[in-house]
Amino acid sequence: MVDVLDNNPPHQVVIVGGGFGGLYAAKALAKANVNVTLIDKRNFHLFQPLLYQVATGTLSPADISSPLRAVLSKSKNTKVLLGEVSDINPETQQVMMGEEKIAYDTLIVATGAKHSYFGKDNWEEFAPGLKTVEDAIEMRRRIFTAFEAAEKETDPVKRRAWLTFVIVGGGPTGVELAGAIAELAYKTLKEDFRNIDIRETQVILLEGLDRVLPPFAPELSQVAALSLQEFGVSVQTQTLVTNIEGDIVTIKQGDEIREIASKTVLWAAGVKASAMGKVLAERTGVECDRAGRVIVEPDLSIKGYHNIFVVGDLANFSHQNSKPLPGVAPVAKQEGEYVAALVQKRLEGQTLPQFNYTDYGSLAMIGQNSAVVDLGFIKLKGFFAWLFWLVIHIYFLIEFDNKIVVMIQWAWNYITRKRGARLITGEESLAFTKVDDSHVSSHYIPTNNRQPVNV
Amino acid sequence: MVDVLDNNPPHQVVIVGGGFGGLYAAKALAKANVNVTLIDKRNFHLFQPLLYQVATGTLSPADISSPLRAVLSKSKNTKVLLGEVSDINPETQQVMMGEEKIAYDTLIVATGAKHSYFGKDNWEEFAPGLKTVEDAIEMRRRIFTAFEAAEKETDPVKRRAWLTFVIVGGGPTGVELAGAIAELAYKTLKEDFRNIDIRETQVILLEGLDRVLPPFAPELSQVAALSLQEFGVSVQTQTLVTNIEGDIVTIKQGDEIREIASKTVLWAAGVKASAMGKVLAERTGVECDRAGRVIVEPDLSIKGYHNIFVVGDLANFSHQNSKPLPGVAPVAKQEGEYVAALVQKRLEGQTLPQFNYTDYGSLAMIGQNSAVVDLGFIKLKGFFAWLFWLVIHIYFLIEFDNKIVVMIQWAWNYITRKRGARLITGEESLAFTKVDDSHVSSHYIPTNNRQPVNV
Repeated sequence: MVDVLDNNPPHQVVIVGGGFGGLYAAKALAKANVNVTLIDKRNFHLFQPLLYQVATGTLSPADISSPLRAVLSKSKNTKVLLGEVSDINPETQQVMMGEEKIAYDTLIVATGAKHSYFGKDNWEEFAPGLKTVEDAIEMRRRIFTAFEAAEKETDPVKRRAWLTFVIVGGGPTGVELAGAIAELAYKTLKEDFRNIDIRETQVILLEGLDRVLPPFAPELSQVAALSLQEFGVSVQTQTLVTNIEGDIVTIKQGDEIREIASKTVLWAAGVKASAMGKVLAERTGVECDRAGRVIVEPDLSIKGYHNIFVVGDLANFSHQNSKPLPGVAPVAKQEGEYVAALVQKRLEGQTLPQFNYTDYGSLAMIGQNSAVVDLGFIKLKGFFAWLFWLVIHIYFLIEFDNKIVVMIQWAWNYITRKRGARLITGEESLAFTKVDDSHVSSHYIPTNNRQPVNV
Repeated sequence: MVDVLDNNPPHQVVIVGGGFGGLYAAKALAKANVNVTLIDKRNFHLFQPLLYQVATGTLSPADISSPLRAVLSKSKNTKVLLGEVSDINPETQQVMMGEEKIAYDTLIVATGAKHSYFGKDNWEEFAPGLKTVEDAIEMRRRIFTAFEAAEKETDPVKRRAWLTFVIVGGGPTGVELAGAIAELAYKTLKEDFRNIDIRETQVILLEGLDRVLPPFAPELSQVAALSLQEFGVSVQTQTLVTNIEGDIVTIKQGDEIREIASKTVLWAAGVKASAMGKVLAERTGVECDRAGRVIVEPDLSIKGYHNIFVVGDLANFSHQNSKPLPGVAPVAKQEGEYVAALVQKRLEGQTLPQFNYTDYGSLAMIGQNSAVVDLGFIKLKGFFAWLFWLVIHIYFLIEFDNKIVVMIQWAWNYITRKRGARLITGEESLAFTKVDDSHVSSHYIPTNNRQPVNV
């Protein structure tokens, strides 16, 4: 069981992925007598739990991102490499970035997950998901463009479709998106339009199971659903999406099939493992589960390869409960830290007991002054849950980088109810009138009727 | 000279463009007994003077942008329309947005300028300019990607090209960009790389005239050039760019022709009027200057059309000095406010004396604790000029929107010297390793030489 490692020349740890799993592993190795190389496609770590606030115009991408080099600039044993790992050779102990080969003694794979459409990849065009900064900016563009298009639309049926937002998936991301869009429509933007009555906006949250926030205690799911309804969200559980095409979402509720006309469908329903899972399976013979996650050993290594570890959303760790640990930031963080500790122990000729996840609880924001928090021993809702959510998120943001700006931004938004980051940007935003031409028959008050229209 | 206007039904003012000229005109009409329609391609006003701080990773786009609807939400007589004006019919008094026609009684055209390559449009690919949020994000991507590529490059000649930044144009934008990039390389990023010695970075500022900041007093140009040199910028005046292609900038200094190998060339040299200038010329017969700017009458209207005004960078106003007013924010702001006041006067059967620009001075940031300010009666440099620059910019930012976050961000950056917004984002950023494949021969410390390289 115990691997005693030779550490002369220094032991080389390669970490693939700078998300929570990879970054916490690197940070935990900062003072260890090893050389660390962290490889990521992007030059920044993204605080994904707050991505929905970028998508809905509260925060800027940089507010929830930390440049990897800045986070690790004090870790003199750590090198950051920008690039994409394409392959692994476990026999020669190398990872490949295109033509380039990087040697490792210990490899930690933490490439995470991407959103999944359960095989219906053609839905992605109509219902974008939320995993990257670019996804969030695209979602933000769609949401704010929808209100703009509604303002110009004269046909009431089309206007209704522009003002209907459908969120597929009632997990934390779906709940947070639905709450934030409802707040936008009913509070933030209520003074901003002249032609439309923005209170006609409909926000519909669809969930396949019988309650939202399935990982939470049932009574908190109940509280969340009621709070969402108070915010103006229509919560529809036991609802399956059977098709998404153009601006029609087809749903199945029991035996009933219904169609919802919506120009803005957002996907928060499923994830699958990133491509590195498949690479590992091919190169090492390790087993993956149906979602493509790598089935790991009790110490997070993979079968037959004591020096290859998988942490975070890419790992299926089922040694603690009957089911795999959930794909959330605290799991990834603890797994990364565990592997970092194990590598150091092994260099001393020792080992560690198996990985054990400590679940401190779950929390989800619903909207201003409203959240749900499930800490197991205590359950919070309403204002105190909301405050707890803020404190926890600021605490974790500040841990890597001093994101004090986020705190100020939130405080400012709270006082003014403004959202300054609601920019429509990107290549497509410049073609606004052209892109939507076929759908939006533009409209303006004609010259002979020059009364102001302040609805 | 006096136009007495019938105001029943309410007088319809259409403003095209939500930059400084258009937005200040709209704000000044907020309480007037007119209906206002502000049309812009984008849903936000951009504080262009700070765009270089987005390009160099200090601020986020949203920090310097204000949603037009939010700025004008209290102006109940004002409607914001998202779209692009394609044509004008001065006879029927309508502007065209594609198929849509919008009637006006008074038209204010404030569509600004874009960067110009003096007929060498093929240079744009190699030397992007800085006018939009997308431009700034592209510049930011190129700057930070260059350091990343240098870190991976083993060939010293290629590495030098990655670490060479050429800024074309020594006006305020060029000076501010050069100062900010020097500060990045020599201060902000100095701890962040392991393979390269980032102090090898070269920042070269090219200016055709005999001094930088030509609109300022000569002694301040001198101060600016010296300060830039202290920051590590190579300032080359009386230098003409004769070609930009691939990663070679060809320059002419006197009779000497030289080539500079640089992977990152940034354009801050010239602007030309936006396309609306040409439309106005065709539809009304008004004259344009060589840069495409519309030559306006002393009251900013155009010849033969008392109810069509041009303000801001699109206007050539030469009735005050022998040369046209410069294309800067304060000119646009005062012109917009003047036209708004004139429209109101005319409704009362009165008029105003001709437009008269009050020049409060010019200012340019060079770097931490260093700026130049020319107020005419007083000239400042160094720390006090820098502080003055900060106060003025915060004052103007806060005027439309409460950009208190910017102040905090600056304060924070000042204390920590960090730049949190240095994200490499956008579609191309994801293809980093692929895009640069032909130029960057990747490099890594081989297994048999595992010493940490901490340069």
